[in-house]
Amino acid sequence: MQDALLALTKYWTDRGCLMVQPYNTEVGAGTMNPATLLRVLGPEPWHVAYVEPSVRPDDARYGENPNRLQTHTQFQVILKPDPGDPQEIYLASLEALGIDVRAHDIRFVEDNWANPATGSWGLGWEVWLDGLEITQFTYFQQAGGQTLDPVSVEITYGIERIIMALQGAEHFTDIAYAPGITYGEAFGQAEYEMSRYYLDDADVAANRAWFDGYAAEAERLIEQRLPVPAYTYVLKCSHTFNVLDSRGAISTTERAKAFARMRGLAREVASLWTDRREELGHPLGTTPRPRATSDVEPPLLDAPDTRPAELSGPAPLLFEIGTEELPPREVTNTVEAVRKAVGDKLAATRLGHGEVVANGTPRRVVVQVDDVQPREPDAERTIRGPRVTAAYDADGAPTKALEGFARGQGVAVDELNTADYGGNEHVVAVVTDTGRGAVEVLADVLGSVVSELRADKNMRWNDPELSFSRPIRWLTALLGEVRVPVTVSSLVSGRTTRVHRESAQPVVRVPSAAGYEEFLAGNGVVVDETERRDRIVSAAGSLSAEVGGHVDTTAEAALVDEITNLIEEPNALLGGFDTRYLELPEQILTTVMRKHQRYLPVRGPGGELLAYFVAVANGDCDTDAVRAGNEAVLRARYEDAAFFWRADLQVALESFREGLSRLTFEEKAGSMADRADRIEAIAGDLGKSVALDAEAGATLARAAQLVKFDLSSQMVIELPTLAGVMAREYAVRAGEPAAVGQALFETELPRHTSDALPESLPGAVLALADRLDLLMAMFALGAKPTGSSDPFGLRRAALGVVRILRATPEVSSVTVDGGLAVAAERLRAQDIEVGDEAVATAREFVVARFAQQLRDEDEPVDFVNAVLPGADAPGRAVETLQTLRSRSDDEAFRGLVAALHRIARIVPEVTAAEYDPELLTEPAEVRLVEAVQTLGDWSQGRVAGFADAAAAVVDPVNSFFDDVLVMADDEAVRRSRLGLLATLAAHSPRSVDWVALDTALG
Amino acid sequence: MQDALLALTKYWTDRGCLMVQPYNTEVGAGTMNPATLLRVLGPEPWHVAYVEPSVRPDDARYGENPNRLQTHTQFQVILKPDPGDPQEIYLASLEALGIDVRAHDIRFVEDNWANPATGSWGLGWEVWLDGLEITQFTYFQQAGGQTLDPVSVEITYGIERIIMALQGAEHFTDIAYAPGITYGEAFGQAEYEMSRYYLDDADVAANRAWFDGYAAEAERLIEQRLPVPAYTYVLKCSHTFNVLDSRGAISTTERAKAFARMRGLAREVASLWTDRREELGHPLGTTPRPRATSDVEPPLLDAPDTRPAELSGPAPLLFEIGTEELPPREVTNTVEAVRKAVGDKLAATRLGHGEVVANGTPRRVVVQVDDVQPREPDAERTIRGPRVTAAYDADGAPTKALEGFARGQGVAVDELNTADYGGNEHVVAVVTDTGRGAVEVLADVLGSVVSELRADKNMRWNDPELSFSRPIRWLTALLGEVRVPVTVSSLVSGRTTRVHRESAQPVVRVPSAAGYEEFLAGNGVVVDETERRDRIVSAAGSLSAEVGGHVDTTAEAALVDEITNLIEEPNALLGGFDTRYLELPEQILTTVMRKHQRYLPVRGPGGELLAYFVAVANGDCDTDAVRAGNEAVLRARYEDAAFFWRADLQVALESFREGLSRLTFEEKAGSMADRADRIEAIAGDLGKSVALDAEAGATLARAAQLVKFDLSSQMVIELPTLAGVMAREYAVRAGEPAAVGQALFETELPRHTSDALPESLPGAVLALADRLDLLMAMFALGAKPTGSSDPFGLRRAALGVVRILRATPEVSSVTVDGGLAVAAERLRAQDIEVGDEAVATAREFVVARFAQQLRDEDEPVDFVNAVLPGADAPGRAVETLQTLRSRSDDEAFRGLVAALHRIARIVPEVTAAEYDPELLTEPAEVRLVEAVQTLGDWSQGRVAGFADAAAAVVDPVNSFFDDVLVMADDEAVRRSRLGLLATLAAHSPRSVDWVALDTALG
Repeated sequence: MQDALLALTKYWTDRGCLMVQPYNTEVGAGTMNPATLLRVLGPEPWHVAYVEPSVRPDDARYGENPNRLQTHTQFQVILKPDPGDPQEIYLASLEALGIDVRAHDIRFVEDNWANPATGSWGLGWEVWLDGLEITQFTYFQQAGGQTLDPVSVEITYGIERIIMALQGAEHFTDIAYAPGITYGEAFGQAEYEMSRYYLDDADVAANRAWFDGYAAEAERLIEQRLPVPAYTYVLKCSHTFNVLDSRGAISTTERAKAFARMRGLAREVASLWTDRREELGHPLGTTPRPRATSDVEPPLLDAPDTRPAELSGPAPLLFEIGTEELPPREVTNTVEAVRKAVGDKLAATRLGHGEVVANGTPRRVVVQVDDVQPREPDAERTIRGPRVTAAYDADGAPTKALEGFARGQGVAVDELNTADYGGNEHVVAVVTDTGRGAVEVLADVLGSVVSELRADKNMRWNDPELSFSRPIRWLTALLGEVRVPVTVSSLVSGRTTRVHRESAQPVVRVPSAAGYEEFLAGNGVVVDETERRDRIVSAAGSLSAEVGGHVDTTAEAALVDEITNLIEEPNALLGGFDTRYLELPEQILTTVMRKHQRYLPVRGPGGELLAYFVAVANGDCDTDAVRAGNEAVLRARYEDAAFFWRADLQVALESFREGLSRLTFEEKAGSMADRADRIEAIAGDLGKSVALDAEAGATLARAAQLVKFDLSSQMVIELPTLAGVMAREYAVRAGEPAAVGQALFETELPRHTSDALPESLPGAVLALADRLDLLMAMFALGAKPTGSSDPFGLRRAALGVVRILRATPEVSSVTVDGGLAVAAERLRAQDIEVGDEAVATAREFVVARFAQQLRDEDEPVDFVNAVLPGADAPGRAVETLQTLRSRSDDEAFRGLVAALHRIARIVPEVTAAEYDPELLTEPAEVRLVEAVQTLGDWSQGRVAGFADAAAAVVDPVNSFFDDVLVMADDEAVRRSRLGLLATLAAHSPRSVDWVALDTALG
Repeated sequence: MQDALLALTKYWTDRGCLMVQPYNTEVGAGTMNPATLLRVLGPEPWHVAYVEPSVRPDDARYGENPNRLQTHTQFQVILKPDPGDPQEIYLASLEALGIDVRAHDIRFVEDNWANPATGSWGLGWEVWLDGLEITQFTYFQQAGGQTLDPVSVEITYGIERIIMALQGAEHFTDIAYAPGITYGEAFGQAEYEMSRYYLDDADVAANRAWFDGYAAEAERLIEQRLPVPAYTYVLKCSHTFNVLDSRGAISTTERAKAFARMRGLAREVASLWTDRREELGHPLGTTPRPRATSDVEPPLLDAPDTRPAELSGPAPLLFEIGTEELPPREVTNTVEAVRKAVGDKLAATRLGHGEVVANGTPRRVVVQVDDVQPREPDAERTIRGPRVTAAYDADGAPTKALEGFARGQGVAVDELNTADYGGNEHVVAVVTDTGRGAVEVLADVLGSVVSELRADKNMRWNDPELSFSRPIRWLTALLGEVRVPVTVSSLVSGRTTRVHRESAQPVVRVPSAAGYEEFLAGNGVVVDETERRDRIVSAAGSLSAEVGGHVDTTAEAALVDEITNLIEEPNALLGGFDTRYLELPEQILTTVMRKHQRYLPVRGPGGELLAYFVAVANGDCDTDAVRAGNEAVLRARYEDAAFFWRADLQVALESFREGLSRLTFEEKAGSMADRADRIEAIAGDLGKSVALDAEAGATLARAAQLVKFDLSSQMVIELPTLAGVMAREYAVRAGEPAAVGQALFETELPRHTSDALPESLPGAVLALADRLDLLMAMFALGAKPTGSSDPFGLRRAALGVVRILRATPEVSSVTVDGGLAVAAERLRAQDIEVGDEAVATAREFVVARFAQQLRDEDEPVDFVNAVLPGADAPGRAVETLQTLRSRSDDEAFRGLVAALHRIARIVPEVTAAEYDPELLTEPAEVRLVEAVQTLGDWSQGRVAGFADAAAAVVDPVNSFFDDVLVMADDEAVRRSRLGLLATLAAHSPRSVDWVALDTALG
């Protein structure tokens, strides 16, 4: 292992990096060393490499866990500014470590980094070696609250992991640290004893006092304008906080306060550092601004053609935007966005062309356009000049205005015509726009497509202007065989593209736009997503069949999609794991496979999990080596999971439940324990209005007591998506009735749009209580989702409420209003302020989600609007909607609706639903009074019955309108007539907006 | 610089060292990293190398001082066990750093290491590169209070110094840290800001609280049996203490308490660590016991001769004991000790031999013996048997007893003789002891000489039995050309020796004992000390003459002696320094040259210092390079001194004086300020009894106010031997009268046995006050010197008191008794307990030193004893002694003394000096009464006058004894007779012990 550290140090110092020492106070990561966190600030260049023993008290495991250490070794590199090819430089460093990058499957898998405690974030990847995360690779965008310019590249190697993989060690203690001595022999005692300190023996009161003392010292030093010692004390704060946390001594309030304090200090230190460096005149110089477009050298191998290109006939266009590895969803989004942008922009020109097709891989977005014409046709354009009356003087000679116009258009006065504009005769010039050559048009169009590219989350790199999901590193643009010179910021397009970095020739010249896909395929890149997907599905099928299994690619569709965009050429392989892990609950195993490793689970004929998986490597590699690597990773992960599993099984459910008090829910809404308490209470309240038999009642009560307990289990902390699943497993193993376990599981349902719903009543009630609390709590705190940001998943929660209420007639007594009111009450009981406004907003939000859901189900928007008054009870609203739609062709019903609409139009909203029959003596009046009285009050009734019953009032209403002047002079009479109509309206089901319905039927 | 760190790391890891990381809490030195301090404990082997940024708040200088940093970089190596050739391995590491070890002068200069705060010490060297200390090289003997077995070798490189030398940088900020970036650019801001923290801005109250908190945490963790985290908190304690200290916030009491606490914790941690490793079964194994003599392989190139050696005639003996570099004084001591031991041991054999001559260099002690005879002569020996009466039975036949005796001696019964033993006739056997061969005799003798070698301070290395000043690595023993096989512990003698380590052939075969010196000289080793010394003196003369100067080798005799034993072959060179440094006080310049660098100062015709020095390199080297190196070191040292000088000149004398409160004197006797207060007061008291004119009185008063102030100056803290010198310089420059400066300077006189004494009265009074306080304070605390240990220099102080009192008649009114009484009083005034016993012991101690001094001046011991009753006033006692000796041949005086002796013998000590003349009526009585009355009382008188006056009592006394029976029956008469004699004794000068004197006169 020490050889590896030396090799990396040598590699990076040979490449101009400064070597510094680990920091001499405890830090949680190499990033926290001032050689990173302070040096990435400001304009000074900085290239550094160092080892950092990173202290994570939380990861203390007494040295027992094979993969977790309270102090692990990071190797940290900062390249400031981004050198333009940091991935390539990094890959060469793996070779320096003795890793054959061609034999192995090395991948850059999206993983962004944020450290709110220091106001820092960046975008990047975790680097996979045969499925093992060996490096964090980040483009630092912000630090200490400051936007970074220039951007730094941060490369953090996890040394123990890399070495375990290289040495095939199954436990970190087995690492050969140096010749003749293992890691465990050298550091085992320290690992055990420091674990003891962090987990059991650290003095809480002392550490608490130190935390405050360090923070105060940092504050004083900031006042003294000494960022370096101040930062040291911020680090001491942070470490002390981590110690307290691992000792379980941090309450929610303390956590929030501590974080706020550290964040504030870090920002002040960063700002002070920046100022001080400026005062010192930036001793290391400043990074030159990246060269602007005009004077940039072409970044690619081939020189741009200099002659203006001209084509003799139609030709295909190839445009490739080369990037560093995009997140899978961004591949899809960008392909679509680029296709549309190219189409739209071409449409705005006169250039003739065939179909616009787009494709993509993680490293390229490709647009191909058939039959691009060599030129735009010329076009005539008529330009309006002065009125004829103003164009010629009394002598018929051109006025100065006319002459000016003609000169302006480059036309002789005698070539001008006239035309009529709204009855006025104007002079007009007809000019010819000469069509531009295709190359010129495309250069413009494609350039603007690139400069306008945006993703959900965008970053900066060493380009002076561009901003995108990941760095754009090259452009390839060919029209037939002619290069299209696209220039965007510092990028200039060429005729080369890049294929696998590990290829003998990673940069290749594309001969022609035609045959591009085949050409790329010959270089190991399958540019068509569908083809990649098909190959994956097919390989998964045949590989799994080898062991008598299958892969359910339908159930795993989302995962297959993701995998498709993680690679450029699928190379599927079958791996296995020890069958003893099959003793773990299946969800644990599949969750690890899917979420962590993107492996496809292999199932047997009965759907049971087999001890196999299909992994998909990127292109050529040494399959045996890659398989072995992936199997080792999975084994380590399963070993971890088994460790958690065994550890969790030692813990009483009540202890887990108490442990929730150490988990933050949200700063102002208490701990997770507070939230669980509220859910328990809300479920109790809701349960009273639901018909539960004794057994279901007991189940609900018990499950409510335990609700959410598994969130404090090691397994769920590690694999949060197993919340609920683990609750059921642990509860049943702890001797709880199966129904209680099921209810606890169902509390978490539905976890996503297409997820199953609770089937048991206790489960449904708890699931509702959970979501109602979440919604009400967050709205009470004003945390309404905005745009694409919904960090607490409130949309999902609202949809969950609606889906459960729709699907579970037994809980139909629960309404959105009522549920939110109960939730609000329980929040208030915990002294959390909930305004009426917040309750109303929450209701609106849920209703809006319901409406959206209905529209997404292709219900016509007007019908949806018509039933929203009843959205409070979504199940019934849906029933109403179905009724309305089924009657939409029923003339009688349509008449009723029209009548009710007519009433709504005429009767002022304030009108009381009262009338004096004595005053209504005209026959039409009498008839309507009788009909209304016969109909009775349907305001709370169902629409179907009302429609049937109210058929009888349609004629009387219409006659009334025909025969009676509603607005009689006599006020009493007028009031009675309006009152009668209002009564009819009031007796109509309130769950329908009749006016909207009339529009829908319109 | 980073290349150097990498090169060292590679060098040592290639040689089997583990590489670890710097510790992640602040440590003051690489030694403090647990990878050293804990790992050297116990039996487990441990080879480790690491970089350690060592934090020394005390060295913070805002980055301004060229050579001092608050954090400097150490490279630390631990070799456990000692590999047997660590120096050679180390030298090769310098080559790995690109240092041409043949061109440069590399030396191992005695420098022992002790860290009382952790109960640790070791013996070793600082390694010099052309005079620059670049490495600390230590054989660790004890750590955490535990004796180490096996011993570890610790090698600590001072990286910044090495790099500055290699790069020729004059300021650490100018070091090229990595290509294109200097040390200052990379770390300058941190150096400044951390200096600010340590010197100005650290919060004292907070750090104080942390110190206590860390200590408490360490205690708790020790109770929990967790040595690793406990040790971390001990380190945090230590760092916090250093911060407080550099902030000037540590009072004497606090310092003492803090050290005691840290020491206690370190010991407990060490002990706990040892226990825990044992409980863990010593995971790294245990170091094999070094192989015992019997099965050891010869450590040298040549195989021992196997045939028993036999010589045909006398031959010279050569015996060389090869060591690692001995301290210079140990060379001299060991040469003498070995010469004597060989002589004595040979004398105890019958082997004939010529003169025994011994010589030595730092790396060898050599004994040569001329004309060693080939064999011991045979010798006859008579053995007493049974009495003749018991040897033969009645028949004259041999008894069984006789037969047994004969058999036991291997003699036939008829070969036995008889002999008379005290009147009894015994049977005797005469046996012949066959002389052994010279080789056999010498093998025994030389072996026992080596195994009995001891020095003042002894250490262990990888030998299982030996213990000496430094490791003994080889033995060479030749008798003529025959190898003498000496075997001692793991050493076996050979016929090779070692010469300069940098030679092409560092191990050479010695052809013969004859011509050994010439042979070694041919290999660049001058084994004769006198010759080395002569060469140095001669070269110093000729080199200094080149620049018109000279070296006063008489005044520098001690330094020349030291240099002689720092090298094996002198290679003197002349170096120079910038004349601007001559503006500094001369003593600063020469002190730096002598104490730090062992350079000989060059003086001009008038004795003034010139800007040159003579350095003496060890053997061949590139003189220009070595000169340049030495000049650079001196420049750096002078730059440092100039920095202190300028800084000190900014400080007011009173501030220095106040600064003494931060310097510890001794734990229980207050700070140095307390001590200065006492000296001031004692000087005042003493001054009252000394005749001072007004000016001298004022001088004394002012000097007493300032006394010792310079101890808190940076210069004296750095160069403690300049105490007094700097006081004078700074005082005069601060405008004090020259006399005050002189008195302050003289306060420190005499600084050693042959040093000058105060010439001014104020100086003498202060010097006395200083020493009286020191003596009384230390005896009050029970800190009496024992054996060779006298850490507070009490012997020197006592001798100083005596010398001043002897040399300064004006202070003769001050007595030892009186002075100590005053000192005791002043200590009591500071609430320090001083028992009467302590005062008496202190007096005894001073008197014993006085007696020793007189004996050392060759005064006969009995005369010395005779004057000790007057030792309280040493000046007068010396006068008395001279008188006594001058009269020692005076018969009258001898008669007087004999008479007084006779009186002392007869008269019981309790006898009152009274008599009743009425009762003394016999003529002899009357005559004596008259004589006694005529003589008068000389008890306080001087001996010379007494001798003259008392000549007249001799006869009467003798007559009295002849004629009168003193012990008369009549009690009254008897009492009067005794009383008369007692009166005469009582009236004799009390300053003489007459009985002792009579013995002296023999």
